[in-house]
Amino acid sequence: MADSTNKTTVKKLLTLADIKVNGKRAQDIIITDERFYDRALSHGSLGIGESYMDGWWSANKLDRFFENAFQADLRDKVSKNWRLAAYVVRGSLINFQMGKRAYKNAQKHYDIGNDLYEPMLGKTMAYTCGYWDRGAKTLDKAQEDKFELVCQKLGLKKGMKVLDPGCGWGGLSRYMAQKYGCEVTCFTPAKEQIAYIKQHSKGLKVKPILSTWQDYKGKTKFDRIASIGMMEHVGPKNYEKYLRRMAEILTDDGIMVLHTIGGNKSIRRIDPWIDKYIFPGGVLPSVKQLASAFEGIFILEDWHNLSTNYDKTLLAWYENFKESYPKLNHDKYDTRFYRMWEFYLLTCAALFRTRQTQLWQIVISKKGVTGGYKSVR
Amino acid sequence: MADSTNKTTVKKLLTLADIKVNGKRAQDIIITDERFYDRALSHGSLGIGESYMDGWWSANKLDRFFENAFQADLRDKVSKNWRLAAYVVRGSLINFQMGKRAYKNAQKHYDIGNDLYEPMLGKTMAYTCGYWDRGAKTLDKAQEDKFELVCQKLGLKKGMKVLDPGCGWGGLSRYMAQKYGCEVTCFTPAKEQIAYIKQHSKGLKVKPILSTWQDYKGKTKFDRIASIGMMEHVGPKNYEKYLRRMAEILTDDGIMVLHTIGGNKSIRRIDPWIDKYIFPGGVLPSVKQLASAFEGIFILEDWHNLSTNYDKTLLAWYENFKESYPKLNHDKYDTRFYRMWEFYLLTCAALFRTRQTQLWQIVISKKGVTGGYKSVR
Repeated sequence: MADSTNKTTVKKLLTLADIKVNGKRAQDIIITDERFYDRALSHGSLGIGESYMDGWWSANKLDRFFENAFQADLRDKVSKNWRLAAYVVRGSLINFQMGKRAYKNAQKHYDIGNDLYEPMLGKTMAYTCGYWDRGAKTLDKAQEDKFELVCQKLGLKKGMKVLDPGCGWGGLSRYMAQKYGCEVTCFTPAKEQIAYIKQHSKGLKVKPILSTWQDYKGKTKFDRIASIGMMEHVGPKNYEKYLRRMAEILTDDGIMVLHTIGGNKSIRRIDPWIDKYIFPGGVLPSVKQLASAFEGIFILEDWHNLSTNYDKTLLAWYENFKESYPKLNHDKYDTRFYRMWEFYLLTCAALFRTRQTQLWQIVISKKGVTGGYKSVR
Repeated sequence: MADSTNKTTVKKLLTLADIKVNGKRAQDIIITDERFYDRALSHGSLGIGESYMDGWWSANKLDRFFENAFQADLRDKVSKNWRLAAYVVRGSLINFQMGKRAYKNAQKHYDIGNDLYEPMLGKTMAYTCGYWDRGAKTLDKAQEDKFELVCQKLGLKKGMKVLDPGCGWGGLSRYMAQKYGCEVTCFTPAKEQIAYIKQHSKGLKVKPILSTWQDYKGKTKFDRIASIGMMEHVGPKNYEKYLRRMAEILTDDGIMVLHTIGGNKSIRRIDPWIDKYIFPGGVLPSVKQLASAFEGIFILEDWHNLSTNYDKTLLAWYENFKESYPKLNHDKYDTRFYRMWEFYLLTCAALFRTRQTQLWQIVISKKGVTGGYKSVR
């Protein structure tokens, strides 16, 4: 049985966000195990996420539930830890800490299985925010539009040497080689991704390397760098080191696009408990942290906030995941996994929708583009 | 006679920047008083600026001279103070320190005389960077394009209440009232500017107030704030205070455009000597300083770097100034003033051209625009 005080407290908080228990509206939740109330209050974000995975509660529309909760600032009201709710599930899968563990961490998450990712991510296999602002109607088109946007921001020309650090399954690398005739070097510490890139890049000037950014010791200078969804894995103590390394291998008149998820506030040191259980080593950068990191190394040419594009991308991934789930191996991807994955995708969608979390594309250059940089949207 | 060691040193430094003494190319300089060498080395930026005003040296094209000098990093090589060379002249006119002196400072610079500014700035009387990237061929058109750009970034609609802090001669305020039907409140601590606005805004919903931002105690909430060329007068210790005050009088779903000159590096405390003689209280903000100031108060929606537009604007002001000079009162604007003004405009042009100094338009909102902010260029 739930502590009746806790139950009352949770219900009061939910009322502030216009959420009813066992209601019928999109944002309402259904409590199937009364122990939820105690667990939510005593364990904060971890309790909420794990109890969802355990099937103790559901929502008519989970993203709508979190949309209401975030807009009413319930996160701050329930617990300081709730702000990391979206990472509960992701955090249990990914260890973002760099160094020796990076290969293992990457394998944990990105090597879960291409059987999961291929139907979810679509033909581009891009696992970062797509670009819907040019009118894309499908996920594949939104991801292609994102590739094109990045290429245009970089001002790619035939024969340019381009680095794609943290390249995932290499979709952007292939696009830059195929459409723009660039020579692309890309790296990722995930073996399955390297195998996938090798298989899919035949005949293209794409050179995949199994490496973290820290282990990558190449000395070749690149004309352009497309750092897409990489900064989230770098860790706040390494932002400057990472950017300094990128500057080192970028030509003096080169351009770098830094595409990253961002947070509204700087979190310099996270709570050790959160660090251990929730989102190890993975702190989203703030504007301030990035600006501090690139000062004296890069000049800011453009800062584009695409946050709501991630809401749409996450919903599209969720739809694909839901549709493909019946065909997946359920020994590997059981019900608990399904609920975990659902929780991850939809909570994040709500975070971007309510502007609690940002998605940035930042253009930087070493000395300022001569004649001025022209923004692309 | 110049110290021969100093003369040799200066000539060597100039050679690094491909500048010849008494040469015939655009960047070459003509030394008419040999004492220049000693003064440049012993007094750095102040010596260089003052000796120019005294007619000890000239350049075939002063902006081209500084373009070469800045690109070769001569500033760092001659003296750490040279980086402020552009402010030598401006600094002697303007005391950017706020507080009790603000009215006096504003009068000093902005009340020099509309007889000087009207022909220089053109019909818009805008004393900030124009926008040439939409193809403007004249200064007036570039300034109108800037007004329009700001209005579009703000997403103005009829009847909106708009604040224009540090409004100068009110060109933007009139534009917003006239073209968009907004109710505009604007303030400046310069009396001549207030008189000018009153005279030119008849029949428009423009309310000019003689005030600094610190003295402005209004409680009305505004839908939009256009802070154009204001941050440069705020001072680094007050960035956060200024932004907090703006947030206080901006509606929760409001949008603010922050248009400001910026520096590549954070200068938290400037040298007391520089502070006293060169650029009192006036430190250009860096990305890091602004990001630190708005964190927790505003969410970054867009950051646009328009630096090279200022090069063109300054050159246009210089041409206007040169053309109108013969008609000006030469008792008030003597030869020393002419050379001072020339030095100010052309050195700044070179600073923007070589990307040593930036011009930013930053869009910020209090909670993030629902549905996402769409950038305008």
